[in-house]
Amino acid sequence: MTAPGRFNERLSLVDAWEWLDACPDVMGCEPSPLQQSFGRVLSAQLTFPADRPDRDLAIGDGYAVQAESTFGASSYNPLFLTIVPKGVALTAGCASICHAGETLPVGADAVLPLEAGEAAGAVLEVCDAVARGAGVGHKGQAARRDDVAVPAGCRLGVAQIALAASLGVTHLTVRRRPDVALVLAGPKPPAIEALGIALSALTARDGGSARFVRHHGDTARTLSCVGLTDLVLLVGRSGWGEDDDAEQAVAAAGGRIDHHGLAVTQGGSSGFGWLGGAPLLLMPGEPLAALVTYELLAGRLLRRLAGRPAVWPSPVRRFTLSRKIASPVGVSEFVPVICHGSSAEPLPLTPADGLTGYARADGFLVVPAGLEGYAPGALVDVIATFNDTISQDSA
Amino acid sequence: MTAPGRFNERLSLVDAWEWLDACPDVMGCEPSPLQQSFGRVLSAQLTFPADRPDRDLAIGDGYAVQAESTFGASSYNPLFLTIVPKGVALTAGCASICHAGETLPVGADAVLPLEAGEAAGAVLEVCDAVARGAGVGHKGQAARRDDVAVPAGCRLGVAQIALAASLGVTHLTVRRRPDVALVLAGPKPPAIEALGIALSALTARDGGSARFVRHHGDTARTLSCVGLTDLVLLVGRSGWGEDDDAEQAVAAAGGRIDHHGLAVTQGGSSGFGWLGGAPLLLMPGEPLAALVTYELLAGRLLRRLAGRPAVWPSPVRRFTLSRKIASPVGVSEFVPVICHGSSAEPLPLTPADGLTGYARADGFLVVPAGLEGYAPGALVDVIATFNDTISQDSA
Repeated sequence: MTAPGRFNERLSLVDAWEWLDACPDVMGCEPSPLQQSFGRVLSAQLTFPADRPDRDLAIGDGYAVQAESTFGASSYNPLFLTIVPKGVALTAGCASICHAGETLPVGADAVLPLEAGEAAGAVLEVCDAVARGAGVGHKGQAARRDDVAVPAGCRLGVAQIALAASLGVTHLTVRRRPDVALVLAGPKPPAIEALGIALSALTARDGGSARFVRHHGDTARTLSCVGLTDLVLLVGRSGWGEDDDAEQAVAAAGGRIDHHGLAVTQGGSSGFGWLGGAPLLLMPGEPLAALVTYELLAGRLLRRLAGRPAVWPSPVRRFTLSRKIASPVGVSEFVPVICHGSSAEPLPLTPADGLTGYARADGFLVVPAGLEGYAPGALVDVIATFNDTISQDSA
Repeated sequence: MTAPGRFNERLSLVDAWEWLDACPDVMGCEPSPLQQSFGRVLSAQLTFPADRPDRDLAIGDGYAVQAESTFGASSYNPLFLTIVPKGVALTAGCASICHAGETLPVGADAVLPLEAGEAAGAVLEVCDAVARGAGVGHKGQAARRDDVAVPAGCRLGVAQIALAASLGVTHLTVRRRPDVALVLAGPKPPAIEALGIALSALTARDGGSARFVRHHGDTARTLSCVGLTDLVLLVGRSGWGEDDDAEQAVAAAGGRIDHHGLAVTQGGSSGFGWLGGAPLLLMPGEPLAALVTYELLAGRLLRRLAGRPAVWPSPVRRFTLSRKIASPVGVSEFVPVICHGSSAEPLPLTPADGLTGYARADGFLVVPAGLEGYAPGALVDVIATFNDTISQDSA
């Protein structure tokens, strides 16, 4: 058992990120029905099965014509065309109504916009000329057969899913969703419920699928029930007190701990190890510290395993600090802030404040270990995570 | 039946927004289990049932002490305290281990940080003094009983849900999720599948719940099966061709159309009306125009009904246009763009390009009706919607 870590023995946040970033990516891929693929990451690129459009078509509502039949027409010199039924091959002097997206009739080479003609019975008064090809979308104009429609690695949004559906695709090959085994060894109700709900929602936000492994009092036995997984989060009992058996339990279950202790104000008892080939994180059981640890550590690894950028999933924006932040040198500190206009106000964040500050915050900043904090008026980068509602991918 | 709208007879986008913004908000509220409340909008504020914290507690790991017992201690002049078991009332000269979040033992008034003491058996060597109250979180410090924990109108994220769970709350009172009746009267497969998937995903993104009302060929009869709803989207058959029976069908089903025709390049056949007391939008069946219409019209109304800001749900950022955009005066135009650095490149967007440009875009801009477009180098506001993956709230 590692001794209670002094600051200078604890892993720095930067080294912790290096450890996380070195965890191997062994995620494969799987087929996914189109409707359930929102937010997933495409593994195999999607190509166009045919030219797009696959024929010449009208790009707006109007009248299909032979352009030459309109040459010379103006509001001072209208020309008159004969309206023929849709689907009939067009000859000189004829026109037929044609809607956006419809195939041009045989013989037509332009579409006269609706507002350039005035129909009266079977006669169309044309008061403007159109050039050959005007108003026409040409075969292959948008894409050629075998062109890439959606590249591999793309995170699928509405537009990509809709495009795939319009190509007749029903399934896509996507990166497997990382399985996250959540073992809640602490704290007591109702804090444990709060943690469970929050960690499973954050896991979903970052592209993973949380699976609770029920803790039966014996942490080692619980860990032996984890089964095949991509990431183990062992929450609680990570400290150095008499009940804190997390590190020993990992060893007893056949795993190992590489580092125990983190130079971060909240989450100092975090640990980094392995269980059954999957990375395992020891996380503190105190809800606030656990959520901070998730944001600083677990989320980063999980996003990468899910095929997303490892960096913060929310926009980072620069604000002016309204009040001083004091932070001990040698530890990184997670500071929630409330933003007003271009100014960010730091909030207290201690176990005494519980999740109160966390729930009020618009975002957070991280004071690097090398700084004593920030003076009022300092420009700081705020990660606007908290009040973003969660992006829960369809499971 | 309204005549095929000329540009000057069509509703402007600004007037359309005014119509949408005037639709009454008749949404009530409903109870929602906590786990299913992510992304929902809180109707009844949540208050703290008790002071928070509800007792004095340690805010970091260390030793509970009487501060006076440490006065004068330094690394040159260490003092020695007797370590007593946890839970025992503390007297002068004694200390007990105490973890973050734990209740202070009776008699203690400060927490000596772990690194300021060195335990050897039952003796604690203290090399720093602490002031009374140091390391202690006081009862009511974060919040007083009946203080607001989460205000009404807040969209619930992980932090708010976790706070509610930590207060022992299992259900919240949230705004009812708007029911959106989707009637797909056009287009043909596979375009209709693409539209269905995309419109239900966009509806979910904007806080609504899509319900497909199967179209049996007769639009009026289909509309009479819509039932109680908050918004009807009637997609397809909205134009002025021989198959375009949407407007008549609304009347036949007992509804009415206030306006038919919109001065927007894509979606000119949109219409605005009522069915069974709920607002109804006529939308074009061509997939691209339907999605543009959703983004410009339906999404705005739906977000407001869902209790969210009606404005674009994605960040708006300023970019420099890399190429000219030409747009007819009198109509608004929706232009998808690809962004590179600070520059935005407009993409073609016609039915011939189908969803190809839409799926490649990073966002879009809207050319106001009063402009002929933009010159290269113009600063434009880009709405970064498309490649945001969807935020699907748990249903």
